[in-house]
Amino acid sequence: MAPKSVPTASESPAGDPKHAVRATRSAGRQMRSRLLDGASRLFKERGLSATSISDIAAAADAFPSQITYYFRTKEALFVEAACRDMLHVARAAEQAALSAQTPRDYTRALVESVTATDSVAFFAEALTLTRRRQDLAPLVERTIERLHGEGLRAYSNQIERHGWDSLRDPDATSRRFWAVAIGVMVEGYAMGRSPDELSREMLRVLGDQATTKAAGDSARLRLVGEHASTSSSSAGETSS
Amino acid sequence: MAPKSVPTASESPAGDPKHAVRATRSAGRQMRSRLLDGASRLFKERGLSATSISDIAAAADAFPSQITYYFRTKEALFVEAACRDMLHVARAAEQAALSAQTPRDYTRALVESVTATDSVAFFAEALTLTRRRQDLAPLVERTIERLHGEGLRAYSNQIERHGWDSLRDPDATSRRFWAVAIGVMVEGYAMGRSPDELSREMLRVLGDQATTKAAGDSARLRLVGEHASTSSSSAGETSS
Repeated sequence: MAPKSVPTASESPAGDPKHAVRATRSAGRQMRSRLLDGASRLFKERGLSATSISDIAAAADAFPSQITYYFRTKEALFVEAACRDMLHVARAAEQAALSAQTPRDYTRALVESVTATDSVAFFAEALTLTRRRQDLAPLVERTIERLHGEGLRAYSNQIERHGWDSLRDPDATSRRFWAVAIGVMVEGYAMGRSPDELSREMLRVLGDQATTKAAGDSARLRLVGEHASTSSSSAGETSS
Repeated sequence: MAPKSVPTASESPAGDPKHAVRATRSAGRQMRSRLLDGASRLFKERGLSATSISDIAAAADAFPSQITYYFRTKEALFVEAACRDMLHVARAAEQAALSAQTPRDYTRALVESVTATDSVAFFAEALTLTRRRQDLAPLVERTIERLHGEGLRAYSNQIERHGWDSLRDPDATSRRFWAVAIGVMVEGYAMGRSPDELSREMLRVLGDQATTKAAGDSARLRLVGEHASTSSSSAGETSS
């Protein structure tokens, strides 16, 4: 029988037990994040089937058992890495577009930022995988909700700040942006297209998303909506 | 040494050699088509990794060696089956939309037809696979060219026949349709969405593609483009 005075794990002699728990949690988060970084890089380079758990462990300076401890399966790690990457690239794109002064520049900055990485193609691969692995669907669903939610908020802020007119309901605009991004990237990556070509195709497929209220000089198309028809229909007659 | 009078394969005693060659070609085409039918059904049901060459051979009442003879690899068969399926569904969608009397009905008929099958998701899986198998890219490229070419022709015919106004250049409209289809389906299949939900999301993301020249009663948004502004700007003032 062990004497009562032997310290338990949470009362370790290393000091304040709460501190020890916090330290363990923080180390766990760091390891998780390192594994996701390594996985993301290797999966994007080689794809799911050509990347093994031991490759990822080696890249993250970890043991294979740590991967199964944190993520259970290679597929779950793939989907989590892709979801994290997708949200990163979406935020980076919004950052890159913050200084745009016209709707066209805004869309162009978003598109160039998104097509410069292969994160959308990575995410699309994770979506395709999830179709056959519905146990991974909840994470994908949360990611898509955040993507659309954050996209809508960023777009609405830009519109309001500049006083632009969205050509369509902002939520549909934001959803269209990501649907088009996935469609164009999946198609373009299959054909080995360059970021430049992807960017041109995406801009072409997207078309205009908003106009300046003053009927911007470069706007080829202007819209008369129900709510805007009384105030802007006269301007329609002055367009060339 | 064989005597000179032994018939060669092309001079078989079965009759006219040209007839024999034609019969062989036709039997080959039929077998090829049967293998593609079986493969398409199994791949859509189970996905690439859960379907084996011998499963497909059994489904098509053929030998595994016939699959490798006609298609070389399972992946090549997957991509060819998906490409064929995609062109079929695109033609079926155009057929289903032929009788539409308004731009909205036309888009709705296309969307409902496309979301009722899993052919777009199957094609998207083939695109994702092709990214890592660039030897399969030429077939995918030809399929996408045909998809866009036939889509553009069908859309242009509809517009002209009914005298509709396309809100954007018809080629970009047709490309957008397929990019959105791929994006919405890849996302929706990952989340286990029903055909009805896919259809609603796709219509929402697409928005209006064209308007009737007479400013259709149900059109929420109407567009004044450069080329149309002189003839239709006055109609803009009558919208509610």
